[in-house]
Amino acid sequence: MPLWQIYHPVGTYGDPASKISFAEDITKMYTKLGLPAFYVVTNFIPLPNEDILVGGKLRTEKPFIRVVISHIAIKMPNDDAVYKRSTSSIDAILKPHIADKGYDWEYHVMETERRLWKINGLVPPPWKSDEEQLWAKEDRAVPYDGAY
Amino acid sequence: MPLWQIYHPVGTYGDPASKISFAEDITKMYTKLGLPAFYVVTNFIPLPNEDILVGGKLRTEKPFIRVVISHIAIKMPNDDAVYKRSTSSIDAILKPHIADKGYDWEYHVMETERRLWKINGLVPPPWKSDEEQLWAKEDRAVPYDGAY
Amino acid sequence: MPLWQIYHPVGTYGDPASKISFAEDITKMYTKLGLPAFYVVTNFIPLPNEDILVGGKLRTEKPFIRVVISHIAIKMPNDDAVYKRSTSSIDAILKPHIADKGYDWEYHVMETERRLWKINGLVPPPWKSDEEQLWAKEDRAVPYDGAY
Repeated sequence: MPLWQIYHPVGTYGDPASKISFAEDITKMYTKLGLPAFYVVTNFIPLPNEDILVGGKLRTEKPFIRVVISHIAIKMPNDDAVYKRSTSSIDAILKPHIADKGYDWEYHVMETERRLWKINGLVPPPWKSDEEQLWAKEDRAVPYDGAY
Repeated sequence: MPLWQIYHPVGTYGDPASKISFAEDITKMYTKLGLPAFYVVTNFIPLPNEDILVGGKLRTEKPFIRVVISHIAIKMPNDDAVYKRSTSSIDAILKPHIADKGYDWEYHVMETERRLWKINGLVPPPWKSDEEQLWAKEDRAVPYDGAY
Repeated sequence: MPLWQIYHPVGTYGDPASKISFAEDITKMYTKLGLPAFYVVTNFIPLPNEDILVGGKLRTEKPFIRVVISHIAIKMPNDDAVYKRSTSSIDAILKPHIADKGYDWEYHVMETERRLWKINGLVPPPWKSDEEQLWAKEDRAVPYDGAY
């Protein structure tokens, strides 16, 4: 559900372990809310240096990481405090993997319609439902009444 | 208009014929609604295995396909039954190309503003208009009064 | 803030200078509104020819460029004239870089929530604020009261 698309220069996160560590931290942000771990998809999208331009300029000094986050399972209420908590959580995740490495970065979150979302052909169960807890426990999409 | 972005591991859909067949089936879903075939854009986005993480883990057993669908031409009414019909249509398309191959997958649809969309510099004509029928028949963006 | 993702066939825009020129023109569209240049991120996303299908068909005659634009800093009012001005501005940018080269193209703009957006861990200052002017002048994210 949360889909994190991380556009980065080729070579950054060159070691697969750095990607796993980053994706693990992203995953924890959502499993803390009770969501199944396998909901959290991280796609690293490597781009040649010449394909990343900021302000019309190539980046020569330090990498620029652009993170695009799609939230689907839980729609936040239109409330400044909630948005702020959400972005603060994201900041905390990004710190060791981007900020502390001295990179520049930007992110935004978009929220999309839950009813236009499926996993392995199944409608993901309502948040905090028994079925969702089963999906979390088994860490996979388990068929249930109402999933089709 | 519909933009289908299919993030898949390098090697999956390795044969161009498998991509064409997949994209043909996607296209049919929209031409059935009367939309021009050339509205339907499918971008396969190949990612190295190490760049696809689900629940913070690399995928070792089977491919994971993440499909991101953008709908622009037709905004669905906020109606459970309509959403359900739409996702069922998508499920039917994905079955032979993903499910039957034994892959895991997830998709979501986002809907965006029709008035912020152009093809070859032209405003696409209203749904079911005569101009749209001409676009469908000629399978290309044909200038018309009101297209600029 | 504006994020321009330009999906193009490998080889198109093969010369880095053509990308810089394109991204410079995109950037000007936003700096004219008073926004900082570094807000404007352009990602060129090269795809193999066989990964771009239009109407279920591979493109053999001429390149097809698909541009996806995310607007975050400024939400347009729901007003036909405003949308039209915005798309006309985009058309003008695309002309020398796509239309005049004889390519086919399509674009759409999506607008997302400003409060779910940060740069280098900072909340971007309100449009036309003194802080934004400072960001524009220094062309970087400068800490300020309220940025956290």
